[in-house]
Amino acid sequence: MEHTVAMQRAIALAEKGLGKTAPNPIVGAVIIGAAGKVVGEGFHDRVNSPDHAEVVAIQAAGDKAKGATIVVSLEPCNHTGNTGACVQAIIDAGITTVVFAVADPNPVAAGGARALKAAGINVISGVLEAEAAFSNRAWLMKIKKNRPFFTWKVAATLDGKVAAADGTSKWITNEVSRADVQVLRRQADAILVGTNTVIVDNPHLIPRGEFAGYAGNPIRVVCGEQELPKDAAVFDSAAQTVVVKSKDLDVLVEKLNELGVNHVFVEAGPTLASAMVDHCLMDELVIYQAPTFLGTGKHYFAFDYPTTITDQMRMDHISTQVLDGDVKSIYRIRNGE
Amino acid sequence: MEHTVAMQRAIALAEKGLGKTAPNPIVGAVIIGAAGKVVGEGFHDRVNSPDHAEVVAIQAAGDKAKGATIVVSLEPCNHTGNTGACVQAIIDAGITTVVFAVADPNPVAAGGARALKAAGINVISGVLEAEAAFSNRAWLMKIKKNRPFFTWKVAATLDGKVAAADGTSKWITNEVSRADVQVLRRQADAILVGTNTVIVDNPHLIPRGEFAGYAGNPIRVVCGEQELPKDAAVFDSAAQTVVVKSKDLDVLVEKLNELGVNHVFVEAGPTLASAMVDHCLMDELVIYQAPTFLGTGKHYFAFDYPTTITDQMRMDHISTQVLDGDVKSIYRIRNGE
Repeated sequence: MEHTVAMQRAIALAEKGLGKTAPNPIVGAVIIGAAGKVVGEGFHDRVNSPDHAEVVAIQAAGDKAKGATIVVSLEPCNHTGNTGACVQAIIDAGITTVVFAVADPNPVAAGGARALKAAGINVISGVLEAEAAFSNRAWLMKIKKNRPFFTWKVAATLDGKVAAADGTSKWITNEVSRADVQVLRRQADAILVGTNTVIVDNPHLIPRGEFAGYAGNPIRVVCGEQELPKDAAVFDSAAQTVVVKSKDLDVLVEKLNELGVNHVFVEAGPTLASAMVDHCLMDELVIYQAPTFLGTGKHYFAFDYPTTITDQMRMDHISTQVLDGDVKSIYRIRNGE
Repeated sequence: MEHTVAMQRAIALAEKGLGKTAPNPIVGAVIIGAAGKVVGEGFHDRVNSPDHAEVVAIQAAGDKAKGATIVVSLEPCNHTGNTGACVQAIIDAGITTVVFAVADPNPVAAGGARALKAAGINVISGVLEAEAAFSNRAWLMKIKKNRPFFTWKVAATLDGKVAAADGTSKWITNEVSRADVQVLRRQADAILVGTNTVIVDNPHLIPRGEFAGYAGNPIRVVCGEQELPKDAAVFDSAAQTVVVKSKDLDVLVEKLNELGVNHVFVEAGPTLASAMVDHCLMDELVIYQAPTFLGTGKHYFAFDYPTTITDQMRMDHISTQVLDGDVKSIYRIRNGE
């Protein structure tokens, strides 16, 4: 089996851990035996087990790991924490080649490749690096900037309205889009809204639908200074709810770091969301555009500094998909990079 | 050759006539000989020749039309105008089967199918009717509502701005989008703007690029009451320019009908475009969304009556395409239908 094909599988396995590994990264591993066939695979599933992907795959392979190649989406750790270092497990299993995608930037766990080479193991790095880094972008952001990765969700009319002039907003996007949102909620570690959204819309913020293998719901985080109704839907027992009673976004980030989340799914209204954009605290936009116009109403973006065309805030287009007439697009927000 | 395959070809041929047939429809024809092979094809190309598609195809087929099947995107006409009736040409050529997509709703030319049947010819109708009707939607609108078909072009930031707060607007969309616009301009019979656009942007409104087979540029139409600079770019000799000095959209429609255009490509700003939407004079929206935000500036849509969410103006999504990071989507505007 080619390394790139095995790495695609390792990344797909890693993504099964989205929403389940924080504060750890997502990682997937595939072991290719001497005959060129897959003899074991695994992914990190922290809410169910502390075992790292490499260890899960090695256990699955058993004796067949001897002389085999392990293909893993992140550089194996060289750190003994809740579990033993993966480097040692790989050496002990008799694996002779390690192929990984992304080098571990975490100073605590890094040095895996060096230690493997020192043990006489053949190490190949950088295979499908961009793809694996994209799937692990939340955790990588956490390591790089010491803050979570923020995905901003917008569900709007084609002319950018998230609510009509009278405040009504149910429904703008269609059922397929709304089902898609549930998947993104599920893959996040926390869902963030402002106090105003809780007061006006009273959302539950729990992923709807069947998601086997998930032990818990994402943490609900409400940010802002307005008083909240005690019987708001977010205060039920379906998930932990944290209120950050501040308009200071540094306080919000500090609290999110304390909670150990990697990926925050932002379902905030224009005021909080636009303030986050202004503070370079939005990394990605997922926008669902319904084939409708409102003309008047509340626009999803309320930002008032660019005055001339050369000041446009440029983003990078990632993907576009049609969902039964709604158009879903994903953009990377550059934050000055 | 299957009728649907031949009809696809006939529709593709018909579309070569876009921007070149007004006030006539676009029509394409394919003749399948006794051996099942294409023996002749043609399309209506009014600016170069008055001949209808059927006649062009029959001339190309020569003797091979005898006993053949003609597949044509529109019901053959039964009307002698600048040219003889296609029905008679088909009978004279010895064609034994006629397959068409869309029935001719034009009372002057209709009755073709009936006349063909009366002459003992086998007639099959409705093959790829929806596809052929879509490609001929401008002319069909003209017949149905006695007014041209209006395609509204918008090039905006993702947050819907067509100009920054200081009025600057060059450039929002990328080169691929701008090249795509040239094709749509070329396929239209007229390009419409308001007087304000001429004053502020001074556009030339001539399709840029190479378009072989086009004898002339679309008519430039400027609508509104403001005085225009005599040296505005639209007043050069690259195309006919018509000023409709009125805010009354009925006067505009009357003038466009007098000019004989089927398809108007609307590049107007928010004021005129939104007024046209309000008067049910927009049939289609083509929006190019750049991956940028402006926050402030002029929104492409300025419409102020829906106040509650159930009053959303719903459109039908037709297609979405990514153009080097810009997203182009096409919508059908329902106008109460």
